[in-house]
Amino acid sequence: MDFEGFLKDLSSFLDKNQILLEKEDVLFYSLDRTKDFEPNGSCVVFPKSTEEVQKIVLLANQYKIPLVPSGGRTGYSGGAVATNQEVIISLSKMNRILEFDATLPAITCEAGVITKHLQEKAKEHHFYFPVDFASSYSSLIGGNIATNAGGIRVIRYGSLRNWVSGIEVVTGKGEVLNLWGKLIKNNTGYDLKQLFIGSEGTLGIITKATLLLTQIPKNTVVFLISCKNFSDVLECLKESKHHIKEILCFEVFDSSCMELVCSKHQLKNPFSNVPSDVWYVLIEAEIHQDEEIPYMDFINSIADFSIDVLYSTTESIKKGFFRFREDISEAVAMSGRFHKNDISIPISYMDQFIKNIKELVNQHYKDYQLFLFGHAGDGNIHVNLLTSYEKDINQFKKEMQEFDLQLYGMIKHYNGSISAEHGIGLLKKPYLLYTRSPQEIEYMKSIKKIFDPNNILNPGKIFDL
Amino acid sequence: MDFEGFLKDLSSFLDKNQILLEKEDVLFYSLDRTKDFEPNGSCVVFPKSTEEVQKIVLLANQYKIPLVPSGGRTGYSGGAVATNQEVIISLSKMNRILEFDATLPAITCEAGVITKHLQEKAKEHHFYFPVDFASSYSSLIGGNIATNAGGIRVIRYGSLRNWVSGIEVVTGKGEVLNLWGKLIKNNTGYDLKQLFIGSEGTLGIITKATLLLTQIPKNTVVFLISCKNFSDVLECLKESKHHIKEILCFEVFDSSCMELVCSKHQLKNPFSNVPSDVWYVLIEAEIHQDEEIPYMDFINSIADFSIDVLYSTTESIKKGFFRFREDISEAVAMSGRFHKNDISIPISYMDQFIKNIKELVNQHYKDYQLFLFGHAGDGNIHVNLLTSYEKDINQFKKEMQEFDLQLYGMIKHYNGSISAEHGIGLLKKPYLLYTRSPQEIEYMKSIKKIFDPNNILNPGKIFDL
Repeated sequence: MDFEGFLKDLSSFLDKNQILLEKEDVLFYSLDRTKDFEPNGSCVVFPKSTEEVQKIVLLANQYKIPLVPSGGRTGYSGGAVATNQEVIISLSKMNRILEFDATLPAITCEAGVITKHLQEKAKEHHFYFPVDFASSYSSLIGGNIATNAGGIRVIRYGSLRNWVSGIEVVTGKGEVLNLWGKLIKNNTGYDLKQLFIGSEGTLGIITKATLLLTQIPKNTVVFLISCKNFSDVLECLKESKHHIKEILCFEVFDSSCMELVCSKHQLKNPFSNVPSDVWYVLIEAEIHQDEEIPYMDFINSIADFSIDVLYSTTESIKKGFFRFREDISEAVAMSGRFHKNDISIPISYMDQFIKNIKELVNQHYKDYQLFLFGHAGDGNIHVNLLTSYEKDINQFKKEMQEFDLQLYGMIKHYNGSISAEHGIGLLKKPYLLYTRSPQEIEYMKSIKKIFDPNNILNPGKIFDL
Repeated sequence: MDFEGFLKDLSSFLDKNQILLEKEDVLFYSLDRTKDFEPNGSCVVFPKSTEEVQKIVLLANQYKIPLVPSGGRTGYSGGAVATNQEVIISLSKMNRILEFDATLPAITCEAGVITKHLQEKAKEHHFYFPVDFASSYSSLIGGNIATNAGGIRVIRYGSLRNWVSGIEVVTGKGEVLNLWGKLIKNNTGYDLKQLFIGSEGTLGIITKATLLLTQIPKNTVVFLISCKNFSDVLECLKESKHHIKEILCFEVFDSSCMELVCSKHQLKNPFSNVPSDVWYVLIEAEIHQDEEIPYMDFINSIADFSIDVLYSTTESIKKGFFRFREDISEAVAMSGRFHKNDISIPISYMDQFIKNIKELVNQHYKDYQLFLFGHAGDGNIHVNLLTSYEKDINQFKKEMQEFDLQLYGMIKHYNGSISAEHGIGLLKKPYLLYTRSPQEIEYMKSIKKIFDPNNILNPGKIFDL
């Protein structure tokens, strides 16, 4: 590893302003949204073209310099942190939108385009890029693809994987691959593009992508439903799949969440006379006809499974309904020491799984309050634990590590995922065996060695070789 | 390779009726729908469980016996033919439907379930399995997944890849992997499942799958539109993407196709006073409202791009419209010596591509008639050439080989696919470089070696190692 030689060779084709060496700047780029890691990159480079990315990767191979591909650094698993003197390769200067194609419809762009800019460009052409999430103002397209981003409308549109028509990628070996481009149908061997989607920068650096667009959802109705238990929530879900053609989201949260949000924001629970320990369901759905009461057949179908049903097609009221769900995460974070998990299991096991979590917390974590919420329609639940600031921080960390192991044990039992959306990165690397078999992990490692034989790209993320 | 030893060990756990050795039977199972290969399998085995599949694969590794995974043998690329004394491993006795899950909704079944049975089971539960094609009565689910089957409604539902929630697969090494199961969200490293989808049995033998279902499409309208050239067809496509929410298919065929179908089946062209050399567009779309004229805004939007527009919501008339498209392939096959190609290119290049094909045929294949038709909405076009039975068969073969090379050269130029749906198999193996780069092919070979180090599974399909 000859960092000085590497830098010298870099300078032969990169401008001065494409290389950051100032310690403070480098530390800034060494972190994502996780707070668990010590930032420690060696420098940041900003290529402006695929050719420059390729040259950097080839040099990194030559000098055995580890690279951390970097997008908007909005991840929550440490997939983009540099902790070990890596060179951070930021795609943020490759931010051109290259082409709109009305026949697909699709937009081709460089990897450094901000999600929101892509969404806006789609809108200019009267189309919609449907993968949307809180960090759309700062996350970059390349990072979205590398992490197979999901967001709030996965039940309707799926994850980003479904919206990638083609990618251009520089592999760890330094080869440029153009995978699928603008082809909808192509059965000519293995779909290599799929490997890079969700690979967290360990196989290649995505430099360009063609992303599919769809029509803008028009009128919607939002239902807010109270159910006496989670089993009834699942019955509502099943009925919705029969009666509602286009469910945009199917969210769920428990009484604790509702009470906390109401108390933090001085909101009033919109249901009157709510029994304790209920579940709330929030459904948004497209409507196609002007009916007085949208989806009356759905409402009738859940009569036995719901305590009460509210609905609205009015923007301000819909927003009000959404606040109860959207404000949970922040409300928990404002209230004490908190611990989060973003996991998923097959939906049909969710009822039993939630009972198990509650038992566990009741028995062993009595000084924690449990908040359960998430995208029930995707089997994706956020398990949040909250305790007082008075708890010793080290004790807290120790307890939460124990809790994670117990939680992941349950997830393994139900064939679930220890990371529904956020990826493995560094944060969940120690627990990969709870969610992927030893054989799968061996195959992943072998695949890594094919595309990145010198282990240059994001070494130590997802697994150690 | 000790075939006798292999057989003896097989007999220790397979019943007699699970092993076919009669030459005639074996030859029957040695072929798919291609006619270009000499059938030459050594025997057929019919495992009844994943464990038996695994044992067979492990034995095959031990004795170095090549295996051809076999489904309904409805493929058109020789992906399931046995030409080299391979043992055919037929999944047809693993045909149980295991579970319906109403929360996704999804059906889990063994790989040997016939497509139609799955469709019917979905219908029993008031849902729809949307991947449908002509061979649904004989093709098996495992084969559909291994070839990433498409069919007539890809523009609406995508290929089979989009409908696979999870698979169980026995790799070439003989390891059983359970990939994704019933998880909708799972970002925990590489999505290995995607590699097996479309791998034509070269990486593993799919034994079970969980397939997603959707709602049954209700009322539809069918448009039949005449356009003066292909450029106008593309304008109709673009407008349809704006104005029609749920396009179920967007098909196209040229005047030659229309005239041939009308003459073969004594049908009347439904348009009066059609100029020569027009294009016909067939669109099916879901309708949500009772309008007198569905999608009037779409019809208005294509006023400048269409000669005439017919439409109907009446079943018998819609069926009549569909016949003009559906009967083309058979009508060509009935009319002389014919040659087919199933290719795709980015839609926006289709106009120029079609001009190039026409020039090529006009200049060099004057005694052939060209028929162009296909799924224009997917960039997928069937290029058929027809000549008289009087042409010498060897001369015909030679000319068509030349034509293919010229066609594939154009496809390479436009970044297209030499096999939109049918796969590579044996038939298109010599031409893989026209559609995948040398680097991609090297990566594919390396991946093959990981999952199937002894080259036991479908050796010689897609590429030679």
